[in-house]
Amino acid sequence: MKYETYFKSYLKSIEATLEKVLPGDGIPPCRLHEAMRYAVFSGGKRFRPVLTLAACEASGGKVEQALYPAAAAELVHSYSLVHDDLPALDNDDLRRGVLTCHKQFGEAMAILAGDGLLTLAFQVLGLVADGAKVRALLAELSTASGSCGMIGGQVADLEAGKDLDLPMLDYISIHKTGKLIKASAVCGALAANAGKEVLQPMTKYGELVGMAFQTIDDLFDGDGYTKLMKPKELRDQARDLIAQAMRAIKPLGRKAQKLQAIAEFLIERIPRNHHVTVAR
Amino acid sequence: MKYETYFKSYLKSIEATLEKVLPGDGIPPCRLHEAMRYAVFSGGKRFRPVLTLAACEASGGKVEQALYPAAAAELVHSYSLVHDDLPALDNDDLRRGVLTCHKQFGEAMAILAGDGLLTLAFQVLGLVADGAKVRALLAELSTASGSCGMIGGQVADLEAGKDLDLPMLDYISIHKTGKLIKASAVCGALAANAGKEVLQPMTKYGELVGMAFQTIDDLFDGDGYTKLMKPKELRDQARDLIAQAMRAIKPLGRKAQKLQAIAEFLIERIPRNHHVTVAR
Repeated sequence: MKYETYFKSYLKSIEATLEKVLPGDGIPPCRLHEAMRYAVFSGGKRFRPVLTLAACEASGGKVEQALYPAAAAELVHSYSLVHDDLPALDNDDLRRGVLTCHKQFGEAMAILAGDGLLTLAFQVLGLVADGAKVRALLAELSTASGSCGMIGGQVADLEAGKDLDLPMLDYISIHKTGKLIKASAVCGALAANAGKEVLQPMTKYGELVGMAFQTIDDLFDGDGYTKLMKPKELRDQARDLIAQAMRAIKPLGRKAQKLQAIAEFLIERIPRNHHVTVAR
Repeated sequence: MKYETYFKSYLKSIEATLEKVLPGDGIPPCRLHEAMRYAVFSGGKRFRPVLTLAACEASGGKVEQALYPAAAAELVHSYSLVHDDLPALDNDDLRRGVLTCHKQFGEAMAILAGDGLLTLAFQVLGLVADGAKVRALLAELSTASGSCGMIGGQVADLEAGKDLDLPMLDYISIHKTGKLIKASAVCGALAANAGKEVLQPMTKYGELVGMAFQTIDDLFDGDGYTKLMKPKELRDQARDLIAQAMRAIKPLGRKAQKLQAIAEFLIERIPRNHHVTVAR
């Protein structure tokens, strides 16, 4: 079954939640809200929020409990893409086959739209009803996406230049991509009021899936790890990380079947031939 | 008495809190943390966090309860300056007499340092012990600084160009500057567990002080309102707003004496001659 079919109900809830929390493009400043919506509704896979919902169910919670944390994770991801694409950073004109936010709306608006999305992510976390839960979610998401997390990884990537070695690539992969994916899973568990016995395997699972995700992305792009490792080694690395992730959540039993499915979809995504550049 | 003397103890606590929450510039990525610290420790007046602490005391709370919210407000302010100074926005080379963050660290690092400061602001709010309080503070600060608040004001300022009229100037002033100043006061009250009978006058006070602050800034810079109003009219407007602010918090009694002092310091700041450009 295709990812989009298997997660149809999740994806519908995620779109509806994002639609609800993002100010309409008729609300002033209209152009800003248009730019924010452009960045969010541009055909992403919604990998992070799907993970949050699956993690919530695997922790014994209901999907409804995790919708705001899921949307928050996607908003953080969206803002990071808008800022990463900027001329001063990756200077990309296209993303997923369409113009990047700054190409469509100008650089100033893209910077501010990114700022708006990041701020909205935290505002949306605050919509969760239970204060203690908000506090836990806030700590997890802000740490993962902050200067010692995702932003730190982006800086390391910028600074690394050509002197890449494996420890540096691991640092970049774990921080730039892994931390937010790990937080997406952990936030799902927190939304379900999970205890330590669930949070520990969930953290492990999220970390491993995050590293596998980056490895597969590098295989697609001929980037990152492919500069130091052979494609076959990388395919094996990705498979091994995913197998470890699946083992990590075994203790959660049948409730975790959607997390197992996510891992299986990742295995299917591993490209058979390397350097196949496709629109993500 | 000088502002720095009168608020000496507040300022000391604010610096210590910012020092504590900002990762040291020895923590990787070092250059990122150096840039974040450069932006925060560059000689600002700390007007917003001083307001938060004074509002907390005026609401019957202790200074210690409001230190994290105060630091969070200052971090939001700091990030907004870093991003506003960028070449794509105001393109400023100097701030407070020293190089702006992007001039000192490069544009990419300034964008990411701003992102890091914004994320840290919300992380720091999450350090407040009580979950219900965190939720209330998060709603207040994120709404005030988001796309319908401060960022919205910045976009309106960018878009306004030469067709400025008074309603547009009010919109810019209220959103770009006023909302965060209002939130700084309200967060102080929330930190003290204030009820509606305190939150209402505090909100009013914060809004009025925010508008007075922007009016005075425009008089200093020969910008904004000075394009449509005479200096004398603006000085009267600032004095009137401050007088209204002082009346608004009369019901709080003697506890609000530091809020009264803030209002008096603002009156002293009103320039006697217009177009006096000084380093802020």
